Parts: sequence; structure tokens; C-alpha cells
Amino acid sequence: MKNKIIKVLAPATVANVACGFDVLGFALSDINDELIMRLVPKRGVTIINKDDFNLPTEPTQNVIGVSILAMLEEIEGEIGFEIESTKNIKPGSGIGSSAASAAGAVYGANYLLNNRFSNEDLIRFAMCGEEVASGSKHADNIAPCIYGGFTLIRSTAPLDIIPIPSPFLYVTIVHPQIEVKTSDARSILKKQVLLSDAVKQWGNVGGLIAGLMKNDYDLISRSLVDHVIEPVRSILIPNFDEMKKRGIEAGALGGGISGSGPSIFLISKDQKTALDVEKVAKDVYSEIGLPVFTYVTNLNKRGVQIIEMN
Amino acid sequence: MKNKIIKVLAPATVANVACGFDVLGFALSDINDELIMRLVPKRGVTIINKDDFNLPTEPTQNVIGVSILAMLEEIEGEIGFEIESTKNIKPGSGIGSSAASAAGAVYGANYLLNNRFSNEDLIRFAMCGEEVASGSKHADNIAPCIYGGFTLIRSTAPLDIIPIPSPFLYVTIVHPQIEVKTSDARSILKKQVLLSDAVKQWGNVGGLIAGLMKNDYDLISRSLVDHVIEPVRSILIPNFDEMKKRGIEAGALGGGISGSGPSIFLISKDQKTALDVEKVAKDVYSEIGLPVFTYVTNLNKRGVQIIEMN
Repeated sequence: MKNKIIKVLAPATVANVACGFDVLGFALSDINDELIMRLVPKRGVTIINKDDFNLPTEPTQNVIGVSILAMLEEIEGEIGFEIESTKNIKPGSGIGSSAASAAGAVYGANYLLNNRFSNEDLIRFAMCGEEVASGSKHADNIAPCIYGGFTLIRSTAPLDIIPIPSPFLYVTIVHPQIEVKTSDARSILKKQVLLSDAVKQWGNVGGLIAGLMKNDYDLISRSLVDHVIEPVRSILIPNFDEMKKRGIEAGALGGGISGSGPSIFLISKDQKTALDVEKVAKDVYSEIGLPVFTYVTNLNKRGVQIIEMN
Repeated sequence: MKNKIIKVLAPATVANVACGFDVLGFALSDINDELIMRLVPKRGVTIINKDDFNLPTEPTQNVIGVSILAMLEEIEGEIGFEIESTKNIKPGSGIGSSAASAAGAVYGANYLLNNRFSNEDLIRFAMCGEEVASGSKHADNIAPCIYGGFTLIRSTAPLDIIPIPSPFLYVTIVHPQIEVKTSDARSILKKQVLLSDAVKQWGNVGGLIAGLMKNDYDLISRSLVDHVIEPVRSILIPNFDEMKKRGIEAGALGGGISGSGPSIFLISKDQKTALDVEKVAKDVYSEIGLPVFTYVTNLNKRGVQIIEMN
């Protein structure tokens, strides 16, 4: 058993990516949760929160705890973990806060265990954590958090994760300061969709994958359209249509709701455009007097990162 | 005006390709309709059928005629076409017989007019012909017939065709000798689909595009699954499930209904496997006493072809 202390940097992620509800996600640079982790010779997990979000420390109620406990079920012996969590990704912001906790914890734990589990195993464990946070076992934040870049979740049962090559891209995250619960955002979705809308959607998913793999920015732009989810969910986000429209007018390739919101993502080809989009966002929300946090960052092609502390 | 006589070879095509209903198609080698075409100094189109299918020769009731008339609406002057059509692709077989007529005719006509129209224009004209044949303006046979290889129809309005690079593949076409009308195959589809099925479907469309572009045969195989259309339409095709199951057991990567059927396509990595699948097909249908035509061919990466005759 390694007696190491490690720091895990688990990135924020954008799930759904317009047309790819529940199947697409990508990782962001610069915005990371931090986990300080060590092995201990006692089964279980001790969680110490180093931030002000007042998340539960009882493992069965905590995303980190549930993910680690799922992993421990497949390990024998007196092994456990002590984890100090500093969340820089605000819970409920829509950029994969719970996924960063879940994926970061199991990725770090696996590193301390000499990488005995595959990435697919880690995603399986972390999905148990996601279920605690959102009520659904989805992988579209966890997978890009672990792999970096764009990932396609072709299937969750069985799990089938496909890393998608892509050009380098800049991203503007616009986070209007309202709360949208993932469980609410899920419950307003209709259980049935029109076949004609579904056909448009899978045309766009195919177009987006092809556009990313061909480095075809115009095709990426044309494919970033959501005929199914956005028309329903966007009513939960004040000024969503206006923000998206003006972001695209400012040069963004496209965008949509990040995960289940309230954050909005806009993708740009270059940093200047992404900064222009950020300015637009500040205008759009100051016009209606709603506070907004904004970030300009880029696609993170590495995913979760480990730093040895001793 | 060129005074040429040309022969157009317009290939058979497989539309839908399991998960890609209305958005994916690919072209086949070896099975082509033949059109002998010449320009004439008189508006309109004269159609001479050189086969035994008794198709109408009145242009407004004929796929070739309607497609050419759509093109002529955008041309001024005393220009028309004389077309001898020899159909080698049996109408109603499900491998793009009407698309070969429509796409072949407008492609040939455009060649005789010194290529004044774009491929997108040609697809637009040919879709008018498809509408006469099937009652719907779909492009998933026309586009691969013109472009060759795999094509994604990201959108039909506006038209957006994306050629998809792919590895070379072998194809077994299994054509049980029953009739399935495209209009019937369309009318039995439900107008709504479960969101959960649609998500699986667009995961597979993404996986298939990525698999083709990565030359990843296993991913192609895993993605050739249709959760939406096949479960409904396959009841129109005797022994469909048995054929597909035993084809995959014989080594095929996967398959499904070709277009709206009754033909079934199975894709294989090599020719030997495609021939093994053909043997299986003969067994499967002789067991129930239903005559079957089978072909083993390969992906046609060139698409429609022009041969100058004089």
C-alpha cells in the first residue's frame, strides 16, 4: 500500500452539448475541484469539507462517499480513504460539480491503489455518486471529467465511452445566479418526443461528431442545435434565448444549456470571440438586473489530474 | 450545348443503416441502374424503358421525369432530354431503386449541361422524384448514390449532406421475395417515440459516425442497433430476427432493414464473411420456403458514374 498524499484536480464539465442529451460532454480547463486524498488502514471513507457549501459529511449522503463506497464493495481488506474536499465548482451551477467530486474521488482512490480498476469501472462507481446528487445514473459529466476532451457515452448499460477527437475550442460559461435543481429539470421533460424531432436530433448528433473529428467549425456550428430538450428546459433560465442569440451574433459557433442548467455554454473558435461573448453575457443579464458569473476558458483535453504531495 | 450521348451508372444504396433512420445511407458496388441520355433542343423529357418493369413513361408519373422536370424549372430555353432507362435494381426491393433513377437522371443531365448545378441542387431535384415514388422527400438514398460511400443527411431543410469517411466494407444484401410498399412501411411508424429510446438511438448514431471515421470495426458493430424503427418494421419481413441473428453469428458486424425493406443488409469486415452470411441467408429462407435473392458486394466509394458513349 502506498503511503502517499495526493491532490486531485477534477475539472468542471459541460454535459448534453445542445443536441447530445445524455450522450455527450466535454471537460473545461481552469475550473477544478480539489481533493487531498490518502489511504488509511480502516474500511470506509472520512470526508472533510474545506469549503463553505455545507455538504453532508456522512458518506452515504455525500457524492464522494457513495462513489468511494461503491468502489470499496469490490475491494477486500482493511483499506479506506481520508479525503479533504475543496469545491471550487459551485453545486447546482450546471457544470458538473457533483461529477467532479465523484470522478475525482474514485480516480484518486484508484491511483492510490496502483490503478487496479479500469476507467470504465471508475465511471461505474462515480455514477452511483451522481445518482445521489441528481436521482439519475448519468455519465455525461463523469466521462469527460475522467477522459478529458469530448466524450460520447454511446451506452450506459453496458457502459461504452468513446473519446471524440476535436479541434481546440474556447468556451464561455454564463451562470445566471438562479437555482435550477437537476431533478426539477429532469421532471419537466416529456417522456415521449416526436419522431420528426428525434430524427433532426440524431442528424445533429451525427453532424457534431463528424464536425469535431473533421475539424469542421461550420459543421460544428450548424450541428449545435437542440430540437428536443432546450425548447422545454430553457423556460427555467431567464433570458436564455436572448443570451444564445446575442452570443452567436458576437461570433460564437453555438451553445446551449450546460447540463440541466442554469449555466449556459457558448463555444468559440478563438479566445477573442469567447471574451466578446462574455461581455455580451454581462450586458444581457445586467439589462434584467440578474447577477451573473462568467468564465472564459477552453476545452480541457487532459481530464482529471493527480499531483503527488509527498 | 454538348451533343453527347452518355451512359450513367447509378448505384443501389442502403438507407437508414440501422440507427440512422432518415439520416444515413451508403452506396453499393456492382448493382447499378443504367441510363443512356442525350440532350435534345425541345423542352421536356422523353423516357424509354428498356426493361420489363412496366414503369410509366408519362414524365409527371415517373421518378426520372419528375426529377428532370424539377431541374428544367430552373433552366431557360429550348432544352430537354431523351433518356433510355434500364433498371437493374428491382423497384420495391429496398435498395434505392427510385433514388438511382432520380439521382442518375439529374446527375447525367447536369453533366450534359456542363455541370451548372451543385450536388445539393441535384439532390433537391431528385428528392422531387423520390416523393413520387414513396410519398416522402427523403435524401438518404439519393445522397449516397451521388456522393458514394457513407453520407449523413444532417438536415433536409436546409439540405446539409456530410460525406463520412469509412473503412472499406463488404455487404450482403438479402432480398426475400415479398413486397413491402415504402408508403406502408412509413405509415406503421408511430409519430412519437420514447425519449429513452431516442437517447439510445442518438448515442448509436454518434457511435456509428465515430466508428466509421476511426476505422473502429468493434465500435461500428456495437453501434449498428436500432431501438426505434426496426422493432416496428421488422414484423413486415418474414424471419428478419432469425436472419439478423444468424448473420451476426456468421461474423457480420451487424445489419438491419435496408431502407424500408424488404431487403436486409449485413455488413462484414471481409469478403469471406460476407459470403458466409449469404450462405446463411439461403438456409434461413429455404427453411421457410420463401424464395430469396442475395448479393455480396462492397461499399461503393465513388457513387454515380458517367461513361461517354461517343
